[in-house]
Amino acid sequence: MTSVDVVLGVEIEGTRVSFGLVDRSGRYVLEDKIPMKAHEEPESLFLRFHKKFADIYGSVSDKYKLLGIGVAAPTANYATGTIENSSNLNWKHVNVVQLVQQYWDVPVVITNDANAAALGEARYGVAQKFKNFIQITLGTGLGSGIVVDGNIVYGTDGFAGEVGHTTVVKGGRHCGCGREGCLETYVSTSGIIRTVSELLAMHNEESVLREVPMNEMTAKLIYKAAINGDVVANAAFESTGQMLGEALANAVAYLSPEAIILSEGLALAGDLIIRPTKYHMEKNLLNLFKGKVQILSSGLTKGNVAILGACALIWHELQLPKHTLRVVNAE
Amino acid sequence: MTSVDVVLGVEIEGTRVSFGLVDRSGRYVLEDKIPMKAHEEPESLFLRFHKKFADIYGSVSDKYKLLGIGVAAPTANYATGTIENSSNLNWKHVNVVQLVQQYWDVPVVITNDANAAALGEARYGVAQKFKNFIQITLGTGLGSGIVVDGNIVYGTDGFAGEVGHTTVVKGGRHCGCGREGCLETYVSTSGIIRTVSELLAMHNEESVLREVPMNEMTAKLIYKAAINGDVVANAAFESTGQMLGEALANAVAYLSPEAIILSEGLALAGDLIIRPTKYHMEKNLLNLFKGKVQILSSGLTKGNVAILGACALIWHELQLPKHTLRVVNAE
Repeated sequence: MTSVDVVLGVEIEGTRVSFGLVDRSGRYVLEDKIPMKAHEEPESLFLRFHKKFADIYGSVSDKYKLLGIGVAAPTANYATGTIENSSNLNWKHVNVVQLVQQYWDVPVVITNDANAAALGEARYGVAQKFKNFIQITLGTGLGSGIVVDGNIVYGTDGFAGEVGHTTVVKGGRHCGCGREGCLETYVSTSGIIRTVSELLAMHNEESVLREVPMNEMTAKLIYKAAINGDVVANAAFESTGQMLGEALANAVAYLSPEAIILSEGLALAGDLIIRPTKYHMEKNLLNLFKGKVQILSSGLTKGNVAILGACALIWHELQLPKHTLRVVNAE
Repeated sequence: MTSVDVVLGVEIEGTRVSFGLVDRSGRYVLEDKIPMKAHEEPESLFLRFHKKFADIYGSVSDKYKLLGIGVAAPTANYATGTIENSSNLNWKHVNVVQLVQQYWDVPVVITNDANAAALGEARYGVAQKFKNFIQITLGTGLGSGIVVDGNIVYGTDGFAGEVGHTTVVKGGRHCGCGREGCLETYVSTSGIIRTVSELLAMHNEESVLREVPMNEMTAKLIYKAAINGDVVANAAFESTGQMLGEALANAVAYLSPEAIILSEGLALAGDLIIRPTKYHMEKNLLNLFKGKVQILSSGLTKGNVAILGACALIWHELQLPKHTLRVVNAE
C-alpha cells in the first residue's frame, strides 16, 4: 500500500501548542493540542508535545508519511531556528528546530506567525495567484509577512517584515518595543482601543464606549458599537484605516505588490476597516501605482491560519531544490 | 582563435547616450557616446546609436563576442522593456528593448538607474558579499534599488523600489510627483537646497550661502561651505542625514538588509552625509536591528556607475537559467 505524504503544522502560543497533520491539498488528517503549563521549560513542553503527537501519529503512520514539520510562533527566527525573547512565552532563547529534531528526523522549519500566515494564504488562501504580496495580521500587534517573487523576505537575520515597527508618527504613542510612534500602536486591536481613548478625550459626542472602563475595552466592543452606529467607534475605525492606508501607500512604493491581505483581529471587522484603508492608501499612492493594488481579507478559515501557514512553510521548503534547502539544523 | 565574451552597457541620459563594451571582470574593451539632439525621436536616436556602435564593434568583433545588451535609463521598466513618461527625455512611451533588438539579435534588458547601480555594486563594487542590501542614489531625486536574496525587487509591474516617493512628512514639501512630503523633497541635491532655504529663513546665523540666489544654489556650493565651517551648510547636511537616517530605520524594518549603499550627488559629500545618516538610523532602529546594518559609500568609480550597472544587469540576466530568463521581447 502506498502512503500519502503529509506534513505537521505546529502553532506555539502562550497558552498551548496546537498541531495538525495536513496533506498537500490542505486537508487535515488529524489535529490536536496540548495546554502549556505555567512557567514550563521548553524541554519539558517539547517532550510532552512529542509524546502526544507520536502517540496519535503511531496509529496512522502506515497510511501517512511524515515529510517535515513547520512551526509558527511569536518572535520565531527562520534563519536561526530559534524563538528569541518572546514576551508571550517568557522564553529567552530557545532552539525549537533542535528540540523537535531530537525526536523527529525530518526537516523542521520555524517562522513567525505573520510569515506563516503569508505562506498559508499563498498555498491555500486568497494569494494563490500572487507572486508579490504583503500579509498583515492585525492582532494585539501588527505582524507582517512580505512575499517577493513567491518567497518570504527574511533579510539578513530572518527578521525582515517588521512593518508594525515602522515609525509613522514622530514622537507618537509609546510602543512595547521602547520606541515611539510605531504603526502597531495605532493599527492593531490594542491600537484601536488607544484611539477610542483619544477620541473620547477630544470630542463630546455621546458614545456607549464611555460606559466601558479602558481596561475592559476590546476591539470587539468597538466593532459592535460601530455597526450599531456609534459615532466614536466609527471614527476609531476610520482613523485606524487612515493610518494603515497611509502606511500601505509607503509599503507599495517599496515593493509594488499585487495585493495586501489583512487577517485576524481588526481584519474580522471587514469593510469597517477595509474601506477606509483602501481609500487612504489610494489617496496617498504614487500615480503609477494607483488602482493596481488589491486589499483583501484573509481566505483562511479562522482558527486554522497558523497551522495551515506552518504546513505551507514546510511544503514550500520541501519543494526547494535540495542544494538551497534552507532548513536550519541544530547548532 | 577563441573570442572573449562581452556585454554592452548603455546609459541613456537627457543629453547623451553613453556605452561601454565590458567583459565579465568589469574591464572596458571600448567606450564611446553620442549626443542627443533636441527633441530627437527615439527611432532616430537608436538608429544613430546602432550605427555608431556597429562601426566600432565591427573592428573588434573577431576578438569579442557580444552576449547581450543592458540599458540603464530614467523611468525604465524592467518588466515591460519600456521607458515611460520620462520628463528628462521628453518621451511618452518608448519600447527600448524593441528598438535595440531590431538591430542586435541578443538578449536586451532595461532597468532604471538605481536598480542598475545596485547590480553594479553587487558585481563590481562594495556589495559583492551582500545578498540583501538597498542602493540609494542621491542625485536631483532619490532613487533606490532593493536587493533581496541577490535579486532586484521589481514587484508586480517593474516599479518597486520607489523609496524616494515614500511620504515622510504629512503635508510636507511639494513633490514633482504631485504629492507632498516625499523623502526625495528632503534628501537629494534639490532637497538640501530647499533645506538651506528653510534654514536661512528660520535662523539669523551668518552664512556665505546668503550671498547666493536660490536659483544658483547647488549641492556643491553647500558642500564647500560646510567643509569651510559654515553653520547653515553644516546644519543642512545634519538635517538631511537625519531625514535619511529616520527613513532608513523604517526601510530596515521592512527588509533587514546587510547594508545600505549611498551613491552619486550628496553621497559624494562622504562623512558629512554618512555620519548623521548613520547616527539617526541607529537611534531609530528597532532594538533587534541595532548595530547590524552598514551604511557605505559607492565602490564604483564615478562616471562609470550606470554603464557598469547596465553591464551587471545583463550579466545577471544571462546567468539565470534559460527557463526563467526574463528578457522582455518586443511586443
